[in-house]
Order: sequence, then C-alpha cells, then structure tokens
Amino acid sequence: MAETASIINASAAPELQTSAWLNTPRPLTLAALRGKVVVLHTFQIFCPGCVQVGIPQAQRISQEFDPDRVAVIGLHTVFEHHAVMGRDALEVFVYEYRLRFPIGIDKYDGEPQGVPLTMRAYQMQGTPTLILIDKSGRIRLHKFGHVSDLSVGFSIGALLSEEVEIDESAATPAAAGTGSGNTVCDENGCSI
Amino acid sequence: MAETASIINASAAPELQTSAWLNTPRPLTLAALRGKVVVLHTFQIFCPGCVQVGIPQAQRISQEFDPDRVAVIGLHTVFEHHAVMGRDALEVFVYEYRLRFPIGIDKYDGEPQGVPLTMRAYQMQGTPTLILIDKSGRIRLHKFGHVSDLSVGFSIGALLSEEVEIDESAATPAAAGTGSGNTVCDENGCSI
Amino acid sequence: MAETASIINASAAPELQTSAWLNTPRPLTLAALRGKVVVLHTFQIFCPGCVQVGIPQAQRISQEFDPDRVAVIGLHTVFEHHAVMGRDALEVFVYEYRLRFPIGIDKYDGEPQGVPLTMRAYQMQGTPTLILIDKSGRIRLHKFGHVSDLSVGFSIGALLSEEVEIDESAATPAAAGTGSGNTVCDENGCSI
Amino acid sequence: MAETASIINASAAPELQTSAWLNTPRPLTLAALRGKVVVLHTFQIFCPGCVQVGIPQAQRISQEFDPDRVAVIGLHTVFEHHAVMGRDALEVFVYEYRLRFPIGIDKYDGEPQGVPLTMRAYQMQGTPTLILIDKSGRIRLHKFGHVSDLSVGFSIGALLSEEVEIDESAATPAAAGTGSGNTVCDENGCSI
Repeated sequence: MAETASIINASAAPELQTSAWLNTPRPLTLAALRGKVVVLHTFQIFCPGCVQVGIPQAQRISQEFDPDRVAVIGLHTVFEHHAVMGRDALEVFVYEYRLRFPIGIDKYDGEPQGVPLTMRAYQMQGTPTLILIDKSGRIRLHKFGHVSDLSVGFSIGALLSEEVEIDESAATPAAAGTGSGNTVCDENGCSI
Repeated sequence: MAETASIINASAAPELQTSAWLNTPRPLTLAALRGKVVVLHTFQIFCPGCVQVGIPQAQRISQEFDPDRVAVIGLHTVFEHHAVMGRDALEVFVYEYRLRFPIGIDKYDGEPQGVPLTMRAYQMQGTPTLILIDKSGRIRLHKFGHVSDLSVGFSIGALLSEEVEIDESAATPAAAGTGSGNTVCDENGCSI
Repeated sequence: MAETASIINASAAPELQTSAWLNTPRPLTLAALRGKVVVLHTFQIFCPGCVQVGIPQAQRISQEFDPDRVAVIGLHTVFEHHAVMGRDALEVFVYEYRLRFPIGIDKYDGEPQGVPLTMRAYQMQGTPTLILIDKSGRIRLHKFGHVSDLSVGFSIGALLSEEVEIDESAATPAAAGTGSGNTVCDENGCSI
Repeated sequence: MAETASIINASAAPELQTSAWLNTPRPLTLAALRGKVVVLHTFQIFCPGCVQVGIPQAQRISQEFDPDRVAVIGLHTVFEHHAVMGRDALEVFVYEYRLRFPIGIDKYDGEPQGVPLTMRAYQMQGTPTLILIDKSGRIRLHKFGHVSDLSVGFSIGALLSEEVEIDESAATPAAAGTGSGNTVCDENGCSI
C-alpha cells in the first residue's frame, strides 16, 4: 500500500555533500529547504532505469508542482564507471535532455572512485533511488528502483499537508557501508 | 498545479442515485462512506477515453490503496446510446475487464434516456469524470477528461491527511441542466 | 522469427460469411479482393485485448498503407455474450472509436449463438485473431493474440512483393470444431 | 505511405569508415554483407531520441529477425560533444543497455571533431538516422528521426523478397557537406 510505504522512516536526512551544482546559481542545502517537501532523485547518466523511467518522472514532478512548496533535486551519485560520468558528461546529458531542476554532483572522499559520500550517508542500494524529505528535514520515503506516479503523488500530498515540526532530536543515521565490489544494472536500476 | 486543482470545490457531494450495483453485496451510499476518501470514477462502456485511460487508472488506484481508507467506486453514467449500454452489457464489460471495485448504475427519472440523475446532480460535462470526495462528504476534485496519476495520488494523499469535520452546513448544489442534445467523443472523453 | 512465422500456411482462404457490413456501401468478398494483400482483424467489442491492442494496430495499418494495395478488414466474430454484442452495439462502438475501415459481421447458422461460420471455417481459437491473405487468396499468417508491428509490417512487405499466382488447386480447409462451452479472456485475448 | 517511403533511393551505399567496433570479433564491411538486408542505426549516446526510441527499435529488430538474413548494425556517429562521447563512454553505454548487435565507431579525418566520415558520406542530417541497405548494397531507406515499426518491418519484408542483383553500375553518391555549425536536439533527434 502506498500509504504505509510512505511513512517508513523518520530519521533526519543527512545534509547533501556535493562537489558542484548545475541549474542553480548557488549550492543547495537541505537546511535551507526546511519548510518545503524535497524530492531527491538520485541517478547516473548511463543507468537505463534512471534515463528511461526515473528522470522522466522527476521532470513530471517538477512540472506539476509548485517549486515554492515542492523542491525537486537531482543528485548524480556515480558509483561505477567514474571516468566517463564526470561533470562534463553530466552537463551534456542535462543539456540534451533539457533538464531544468537543480542537480548536484555527489562528492567523494578524494578522487572519484567507489561510492560517493551522500550515497553512503543515505545507505542507498543503487540508482535510481527516490528519497522524499519532509518539511522538517526527515526522510519519509527511501526507495531503490521504480515508484509509481500514484504513490509518489500520494506521498507528496501527505507530506505537504503536515505542519512543520521543530524537532531537533531526530537521530542522525549511522554511517553506511562502502558498497565496494561489483555492480549490476537491470530494468529496475543499477545496484551496488 | 496539482495542489490548487485539488481544492477547488467544497460543496457537499450529492448522494448517489443508482438503479443497481455490481461487485458489492449491497448498495453503497456516500453517507455510509464518511470517514473514507471516495474516488468516484464515472464512465460509459463505449467511451474510448474511459476504457483506455480512466478505467485502468481506477484499477491502479483500487490496487494501490487500502480500501478501508480509500473507496474506489465506478459509476456507469450513460447519457447516449442507452439501448446498448444497459445492465447486461455492463456486466459483460466488468467481467471481461476483470474489474473488482463496486460499480453503480446511475438512475433515470423513468426510462433510460437523456442524462441520468447523479450525473445531473454533479453537473458533469461527460465521461470520464473523476470526482474526489473527502472524509466529511464534500466534493474536492471534479474533473472531466484525464487527470495524471501524480495529481490523483497527490489529492488522495492530501485528503487522507485531513481530519474529519462535522460540517452539516455545506450547501447542497443546485440542480444542474439537463444536458440534452448531441454528444461528442474525442481522445479525452465523451461530452454532453 | 518473423520471416518463418509469416509463411506457415498456404491453404485457400475460405470466403467470408457475413450477415452485414459497416463502413462500406456494399458487402466485401475475398474473391473481389484478389490482387491485394488482405489484413483481416477479427475481434469482439468487449474483448480487452482487441480493444486495447488489436483494434489500434488495425487502425495504424489502415492509415499507413495504401488501401489499393493493402485491404484492412475488421470481422466481428462474436462467440460469447451474443445478446449484448449485436449489430446496434457494434455500430456504437465503431462510431465512438472512429473506425473507418470496412467491418463485417460474422454470420450464424440460424440465431446468433455459439461460434459463427467464418470463425469456424478459419478454425480460429478466439479474439483477437490476425489473418493475412495473399494476393492469390491464400492464408499466409493466422495468429491468435498479439502480433508485433514489426512482424505484421514485415509480412505485408513480403506478401506485397509477390506476384499473383493463378493457383486454383489450393485446398479448402476442413470444417473446424464448433468450440462450444466455456470461454476465457486474458491479456492476450478471448479464447473459445 | 510506407511503401513509397521505402523505395526512394537506390544509390550504392558508401562503405562504412570506422575507427573501431564493439560486439564483433572483427570489423564489418558492407561489402562482406552483400546478400543480407542491412539495418544501419546511427546514434549518439547522449541523444534522447536515440536512447529512448531508436536504440530500443534496433534491439527489437535484432531480436525478431534472423541475423543470417537481416544484419542489424549500430554506428556511433558523434558530431557534437566529442570529448564525452568517446569509445570508453560508448563501451559503458553498450554494457549497461545490454546491446548485443555489432556497433561501429564512425571515423574522423584526424582528431574527433565535426561530422565524422561515414555520416558525411551518407549526408545524414543528424541522429537517429535509420538506413536500410538491400542485398545488392544499395541504399533503400534513409530517414532522420523516428520510423514506425510497421514501416521498418514492411521495408525489411519487401527487401528480403528481392533477388540479389549484380549491378556494379550504381553510382557512388557525391561527397556531402560538412555540416559544421550549431546542432540542436528535439524529441525526434539531434540534427546537424
């Protein structure tokens, strides 16, 4: 059921760690987005499930909802084939696919290799991963693979209806595993 | 924007006027559904926009949400070609398309002809029309033609988040026009 | 492989046995269509696989090919629920779905019941069934369920390239079974 | 009409000029493919119309037809953003999208820049471009943008039905323009 799926997690969303941003004049932070529902779509430009399903869904969301209330953000979380998925390739992809919403580049601890920092902090399994963060900055949906438009729309509607809570006690999630080793893509996405 | 679209109307939903029901052991009333969000999908079995878009969406909604919280109801509102869209034809359609949610047959004032009574009371323009009714029995979305899954999901999420109000003062809508005359179908639906 | 699938059968196509025609000023016969490739799409108006897949494909074929070389014909082969799939219902369906190609109504031996005569003569398993008949009047493709556009296009291309043969020796197929008893529809179609 | 579209051009297909091949142990030449129908799908890995429509169609063709009779070949014709569409990026794309048919890399006169040599020789307007070459080595379909499955299937069926001609007199097409300047992508593809 969509309802139960949407309220699984209420830990504080770790701050984004990025090395650069596209489609925005200045870097975004989750802290500055408190009060909005944040739709975080993480992807890789050579992940078929991202390009064919996830990215078009993110575009629909950004077109259908008011950006003052629902912030759609892309996050390029490259955990494989780093050499061909750098910033220059991402810029071409964003230009050719005419993406307009802000897109951050997940940061590495040093040179691009392995799983990047935000991806680790959120313990993502792969790409695409859809994460919804409520107005108070807590993770409320965290899903690897595809999520139906009905379900995403439902969750956005439910989260927008909530009052902002001043809740500083939400626990920071423990650091996740490094996810090294082989990766595999199928029709749902690419997993670590 | 989906948000604004969803909160356009807050008049009391007129009670359904039906001559028969399929897929339910006893007739449904909106009165008995107070406390649930009601998704009312009105259609005709020979309306292409209903069969190809509206009905599949109603099926997805009925499969994705908890029936104890979201009541999906079909309403066969035949306003044209009455002779070939009677109960026997509807039963075959429902059987062959494997529809499982309750479906009412809109009632006429006398013999089946012209626009049926519930369709008039809601001032529907044609089929498909999607109507969302909140837990307190008020119309909150009323749309002829197609509504995106994102938008429907959003509205359901927003309405489910609301508290039930004890509001008996909601005005009953005035009786609508009779909508006689020629009808036309296009890719969006069939209009009066 | 599409190539092999398309040349499986070379028996003479039995003449159509119809009780009426829509979308044509006079009844069609296969005999009069010699020299053209005939695309015969058999369907029922309450068969989901026909309405959602087969009929749209027939429309695409009729729009993409020259009617002087490729004759697209619908055949309403009702083998179940006869009472609600009569000529009046078919006429409403054809009008609402804006079908323009000629559509025959398969004939019964007496009152409408059981499997109609053309459907029997072709030993069809159910609806939708797609049958391709070459310029010389022989069955060259006979498929229950869905056929890909690539495969149908291929077969039409191959058959149009052939010379007309004067071959009167092609055997008439033996009469098929009556197919009485229960029928079932799934996502592919409705079978006898 | 598909029929007329398919027989527009009968000039000799210029030989492919490639710098490397994927998915084949040795380089392919059109000369060595005489006797087969060749489906040449030209694309770029960051062209949305290629990735979302053209490449999936090429995959369907390669799966549906006998490779001994129909040779499906990809050609990476990069005419923009050369720095991020090199061989290493193409290899990742082919791996992640699980493409199995042979894919050549169009060659440049010197360093990768501007329009590559095969793309020039065929006077292509952009990507995707679909080119069908008959058993005798002549161009028979040459289309920028999308071609329906019905139409492609039709053309393959028609070309496979032809006899191989020993026709050495087919003229070599004149060298095409260089296509320098700005490029643009829309939902159909990317043009020079």
